[in-house]
Amino acid sequence: MKVLISTVPFADRDQTPLNILGEAGVEYVINPLGRKFSRDELFNEISSYDALIAGTEVIDKEIINHSTNLKLIARVGIGLDNVDLIAARNKGIQVCYTPDAPSPAVGELTIAMMLTMLRQIHISNDQMHEGVWHRFFGRRLSECTVGIIGAGRIGKQVIKLLSGFNVNRILVNDIDTEIVIEESEKVEKIDKEEIYREADIITVHVPLTMETRCMISEKEIGMMKRDAILVNTARGGIVDETALFNALQNKKIGGAAVDVFEQEPYQGNLNELKNCLLTAHMGSMSIDCRARMEREATEDTVLYLLGKKPKRPVPNYEYENQKK
Amino acid sequence: MKVLISTVPFADRDQTPLNILGEAGVEYVINPLGRKFSRDELFNEISSYDALIAGTEVIDKEIINHSTNLKLIARVGIGLDNVDLIAARNKGIQVCYTPDAPSPAVGELTIAMMLTMLRQIHISNDQMHEGVWHRFFGRRLSECTVGIIGAGRIGKQVIKLLSGFNVNRILVNDIDTEIVIEESEKVEKIDKEEIYREADIITVHVPLTMETRCMISEKEIGMMKRDAILVNTARGGIVDETALFNALQNKKIGGAAVDVFEQEPYQGNLNELKNCLLTAHMGSMSIDCRARMEREATEDTVLYLLGKKPKRPVPNYEYENQKK
Repeated sequence: MKVLISTVPFADRDQTPLNILGEAGVEYVINPLGRKFSRDELFNEISSYDALIAGTEVIDKEIINHSTNLKLIARVGIGLDNVDLIAARNKGIQVCYTPDAPSPAVGELTIAMMLTMLRQIHISNDQMHEGVWHRFFGRRLSECTVGIIGAGRIGKQVIKLLSGFNVNRILVNDIDTEIVIEESEKVEKIDKEEIYREADIITVHVPLTMETRCMISEKEIGMMKRDAILVNTARGGIVDETALFNALQNKKIGGAAVDVFEQEPYQGNLNELKNCLLTAHMGSMSIDCRARMEREATEDTVLYLLGKKPKRPVPNYEYENQKK
Repeated sequence: MKVLISTVPFADRDQTPLNILGEAGVEYVINPLGRKFSRDELFNEISSYDALIAGTEVIDKEIINHSTNLKLIARVGIGLDNVDLIAARNKGIQVCYTPDAPSPAVGELTIAMMLTMLRQIHISNDQMHEGVWHRFFGRRLSECTVGIIGAGRIGKQVIKLLSGFNVNRILVNDIDTEIVIEESEKVEKIDKEEIYREADIITVHVPLTMETRCMISEKEIGMMKRDAILVNTARGGIVDETALFNALQNKKIGGAAVDVFEQEPYQGNLNELKNCLLTAHMGSMSIDCRARMEREATEDTVLYLLGKKPKRPVPNYEYENQKK
């Protein structure tokens, strides 16, 4: 049994996943490039492996059909936009994921990015390191109206953390209008358009699907307040990067905080803009959450290879989502 | 009646304080330098004014004795370390302050600095703007033990915000051992030394007094964990800057986040260090809190000049503190 671990870093701080594989007598190779495989690199690597412990690299129909021995894809994380689930099902490949593990870490990074933008901490830090003393005026989170698009595991976590800051108004939208959110005086379900118009901070927590690709583009940004802050810790592609670049360059909105990109490692032009806070897809990169994600994906890999039922198979609605 | 407003910026976003002064027929001059007055600059300015709406510039005995017309000092803020209260009392000068207004803004900046340090957001942002993609491993706040030294208005605010993150252990020390803190399974009163030894993050929220000057120096830093993060949004001088520089340069602790300095504007060498997050005394610089501070100080100035009782006179224990 041979496993390819394409996601990196892997077992960098916590060796548990390697121990699990070792004890089960499973051979493994960790992606030696130290960065995300390109489509072609993965295509060339995949065929001899029985299972793939995967990151966010592209795993499309061709790759799946080319992977003659593959029986399982275990995603380290929650997003499935990179995996052609239908092709995997048609080829009899099981797909697992770790939907609960990343939420606490992504939630904290999201709040951290909001606070950083509101107080210009990163800008002040850069200035101070250049010997420039300028006291920025900021806003408090509790003075803001925060709009949350997507109220799944991570969106709910963000709502919970915001509530601790006594945020004035939390406006929530989810594609599932029946979704259960603890509404209160301060938490309201509302249309997306009203969020774009009314929120001081807008954060997205939806999966990347056909429906959400470029969900926030020129038109939607055009509805936003002149000092609005847009946060994306979900997936690149949900916010149209070209539209965002233009809006930020022309000061149509106050700023953006972006952790995820259409192409990663990111090499685009948002890095020319001071009003764009950028991080390197670090949402789930807390030591504890990353360890849990890796452990869960590895456990399911071993279970499946030993002929047992994995604990976190991708549910049917995720397959249905990809058919849309 | 003539008022000197030495703190800057003043009425930058909200003109209310100027309207209050105008309606009362009070003449005013706003510090034209756009930065903190030096001791000598204030000494040369002060003598013709009836009241001083003050920032954190030095207002020592000589300045007070030289200010022949001065009847009132109204501090925009909570700290009184810059004002010689005893000299003011001896000369019959009333001192007011705004102790409640800054807490929410300082609290949020403190949490923001903790989160920024834990996830290396500022470092990743700099790297991304240079085209470097590196996914930093971080820690979640809720995985950390946070030590809080000083449980006054701001310390309590920090405890409240931390509780929203479900922080594992919050260790609290206050000079007043009888201070009322809502203790819980997660919030414990404890000695300072135990905080230095056990906390992953240490934040100070004490006033600068004879007792707290250099409270955290080489010895105290030496007790801290190798990956501890030290946060100072209180006052420069509480943490010995030379000891901090040496500790950070020699990686004795994980990092520091510093908003306040012995000399401001800061020109010291902490800015040579990447593991030191620096901001320009922005703790209270949220639009709403700053507006409230300025309004409260101005209201008290007008009340006093019109022969009425100010609402926020400095209480006697602050005078007692300075005698120690």
